[in-house]
Amino acid sequence: MKLITFSVQTHLGTQTRIGALLGDKALDLNFAYAAMLHDSGKTERYYPLAEALVPSDMITFLQGGEQSMSAAKQAIEFVQQRRANNQALRGPDKQILLYALKDIELLAPVTNPGSIRDTISFETHAKNFEKRTGKPIPELWYQQPLYYKGNTRTVVGHNTVVPWPNYTEKLDYELEFGVYIGKTGSNIKAEDAHAYIAGYTIFNDISARDVLQKEITMLLGPAKGKDMDMGNVMGPCLVTPDELDPSSLDMQARINGEVWSSGNSSDMYWSFAKIIEYISQSETLYPGDFIGSGTVAFGCGDELERWVQPGDLIELEVQGIGVLSTTVGQRTCNTKTIT
Amino acid sequence: MKLITFSVQTHLGTQTRIGALLGDKALDLNFAYAAMLHDSGKTERYYPLAEALVPSDMITFLQGGEQSMSAAKQAIEFVQQRRANNQALRGPDKQILLYALKDIELLAPVTNPGSIRDTISFETHAKNFEKRTGKPIPELWYQQPLYYKGNTRTVVGHNTVVPWPNYTEKLDYELEFGVYIGKTGSNIKAEDAHAYIAGYTIFNDISARDVLQKEITMLLGPAKGKDMDMGNVMGPCLVTPDELDPSSLDMQARINGEVWSSGNSSDMYWSFAKIIEYISQSETLYPGDFIGSGTVAFGCGDELERWVQPGDLIELEVQGIGVLSTTVGQRTCNTKTIT
Repeated sequence: MKLITFSVQTHLGTQTRIGALLGDKALDLNFAYAAMLHDSGKTERYYPLAEALVPSDMITFLQGGEQSMSAAKQAIEFVQQRRANNQALRGPDKQILLYALKDIELLAPVTNPGSIRDTISFETHAKNFEKRTGKPIPELWYQQPLYYKGNTRTVVGHNTVVPWPNYTEKLDYELEFGVYIGKTGSNIKAEDAHAYIAGYTIFNDISARDVLQKEITMLLGPAKGKDMDMGNVMGPCLVTPDELDPSSLDMQARINGEVWSSGNSSDMYWSFAKIIEYISQSETLYPGDFIGSGTVAFGCGDELERWVQPGDLIELEVQGIGVLSTTVGQRTCNTKTIT
Repeated sequence: MKLITFSVQTHLGTQTRIGALLGDKALDLNFAYAAMLHDSGKTERYYPLAEALVPSDMITFLQGGEQSMSAAKQAIEFVQQRRANNQALRGPDKQILLYALKDIELLAPVTNPGSIRDTISFETHAKNFEKRTGKPIPELWYQQPLYYKGNTRTVVGHNTVVPWPNYTEKLDYELEFGVYIGKTGSNIKAEDAHAYIAGYTIFNDISARDVLQKEITMLLGPAKGKDMDMGNVMGPCLVTPDELDPSSLDMQARINGEVWSSGNSSDMYWSFAKIIEYISQSETLYPGDFIGSGTVAFGCGDELERWVQPGDLIELEVQGIGVLSTTVGQRTCNTKTIT
């Protein structure tokens, strides 16, 4: 399944829902499941049951585990059956079940992950820094996965205008993808990690490169170099593991249509399974937690010495997931206090 | 006010409530406010109104801003009046309003902060590293506050046994305090920052020192050196700014009753106001967000070359806030995969 979180405008304000991409349409999973129960005639409590099994919030849905995933698949099959039979497609109270994508706004699959960790897992990306700094990759890089934690409040989705922070001269994209955790656990072994992965999405890790390069010398990791409103762009969908093998995916970044970055996930030295084993030592992971791959080789402006400008369109494409588009915002007032 | 979050056992399971410390008692603020409305005879909707104004969840309460703070103060005055008059102290349905501390469990004031940032703001602490490493404090330390982000899922409160992570030989405490944000905002000026501070608490930033020292050389900041279940100890209460001047507070750490660390908050080179100004550039802060002071000088075992052991009692005391006690857990299985 390609699961999404989307918002839709109604006369009673904006509503946020979860769904599944079906071709060029978005299916409202909660109402589709309610419609299936309603049509079965077996219960009058179709709304509470749909709310419990296919709730319209992605983290709550992921907490439902296999049972909720299975219910979502049933809802999709129900709708596909009705479409094949040219039957009416409405919820129990005439709710829309299938939307044209132009009629909804795709949000990040998980709008409020409980945690964001980003790693540096691509070997060639690490080696590129070796070339530029003249220093070899430290041994530790090969001994343990490295990560920092991101700001979970700054997540946005597809087709967003990301503001230019008032304190940077060098805003940058990073071409990444990542996993969402689907099951609570700690001390997870790499060989068991697959059971903890709910799915994959594309990640544009927006960075204020000039600020980042200074601050990381102080050994506390990325701070304002990564922390800015709308700086964690994720989407357009969460692809479940049954539909995606993450070991060899083509990855591409285009700026205003021109290819700047190309790579493949096979260059990851650290697999998500190994990363999950490392992170989860004496520490619990929860449904909706996000872990990024880190930047693919040549997957950011910094490695190319090319810089995006206000108004530029950044498109990140990862094979099997889709395209994640972001527009770079205009510079506004300069109230910078970072030196 | 000294605000708390506490849990209480009932026949219907454990309930989490917010309250205020009154001497050696804990007041249930939500039921106290409901009792006040009930006794006024002006409305029958005392529960919904109490829920809206003094909800029993600290973040939701903080979102209520000045209006909720004022309602909490009214509830405290109501209860103090009744105590002075020797009147019965029960809620509208005979709920307990005042608990002996032994009958409740104090949780962290905010059990699930939306973000945790910790800084390095004490100058002597920074200089101590200078002495040990032989390198001067970098200029950048004086130019901008430095911070890393903590794991928001690992927060625990007073009187907790913190497990010994299976991957470290050198577990350490850090004597700190910090602020909770009380109001949503970005691009906050230092001179306006006071309006964004909801209060102060004590912070024991548990660290796996051996792992931390290795990983920070890789420039991504603290990872498994700080990230472990129950590694962010906060409490015992949130002291509102009208009752605490943070500029000169005595701070002390005792291990099994012996004083290991003593300091004073006046050694902070970076004030919380300046830190809030720095962090909030192009980035929104929200009620319940936590910002730590960093370790006071000689405020951790690492600076003293002394190490806590399983079973040790760590007591952190900060003048005007109280004492935050933590017991170091026993070592369990060793399943370490960190090299």
